[in-house]
Amino acid sequence: MQTDTHRTFTLTPIGHVVTEVPDEEIPRRRRELVSEVLILPEYVPGLTALEAYSHLIVIFYMDRAPPCTELLMRPNTETGRPAVGAFAMRTRNRPNPLGLAVVDLLEINDNRLKVRRLDAWHGTPVVDLKPYDFYDIHTEICVPEWSNSARRGRAIGDPTSAPDAVK
Amino acid sequence: MQTDTHRTFTLTPIGHVVTEVPDEEIPRRRRELVSEVLILPEYVPGLTALEAYSHLIVIFYMDRAPPCTELLMRPNTETGRPAVGAFAMRTRNRPNPLGLAVVDLLEINDNRLKVRRLDAWHGTPVVDLKPYDFYDIHTEICVPEWSNSARRGRAIGDPTSAPDAVK
Repeated sequence: MQTDTHRTFTLTPIGHVVTEVPDEEIPRRRRELVSEVLILPEYVPGLTALEAYSHLIVIFYMDRAPPCTELLMRPNTETGRPAVGAFAMRTRNRPNPLGLAVVDLLEINDNRLKVRRLDAWHGTPVVDLKPYDFYDIHTEICVPEWSNSARRGRAIGDPTSAPDAVK
Repeated sequence: MQTDTHRTFTLTPIGHVVTEVPDEEIPRRRRELVSEVLILPEYVPGLTALEAYSHLIVIFYMDRAPPCTELLMRPNTETGRPAVGAFAMRTRNRPNPLGLAVVDLLEINDNRLKVRRLDAWHGTPVVDLKPYDFYDIHTEICVPEWSNSARRGRAIGDPTSAPDAVK
């Protein structure tokens, strides 16, 4: 089968992020950040039984990311090292500006999900929610010394997201 | 800020999945499945330094999923229980048919990534790759008794993906 590389795919928001924390404070506060995901009414049936999980994967569309014109950049943990690729970082500077966070699910009230550790700006469109399950946990991993988590110590469960890279 | 819920977003494939395993065998064989992700030439610079990570998150677009007309379904582990929502399952039957797998990165050769445990069909468009890092690991989790991993025993690192639900 040949893949037509010119196809594109359309995502429709299922909801959006609600937080009072200003955009610029989110990276610093993300460890303890409690936000809401407000689901559009027509998608609320899709939340049925979700409360049985303690953790979710939230996929959001970083709609305010500037167009990705550069696939190489420097991690901001160490400005002296050679540039690395967008796919080797969690930067918003990527061809498809999808964001992903593993969050603690604190509460569901009708169409409002209260979650901890969602490092997305207020108003960011959410495009999918998935339960976080045992097959998502891999504890024997390697990360490079320039990753943000390596710099801060490799504590499992440390919700330190890699911040945007400095170009 | 008000979010315009009528906006849509466009994803462009960065590559696609290559496997010789027939679609219908992928759920059963996913634990040990070795596939390739073939990255389009223009995105290859984005792979720079990715080999420093042992595990990746692959986000793919399940382009052959039928249109999502039903947000409630029964997990196929236990057909007697009440239906649950699409966002509480990893089924391909979801409003935005994004798939997500945490995979072992085995090898990178130019634009070819060899990975283990990518439960996506041959030809599936890939829309993002992200490094899997310590902040993605949460070991103190709860999953419901009807999740596939619960049924099979909650081994951490067990790459059992939840198969599609039976409607």
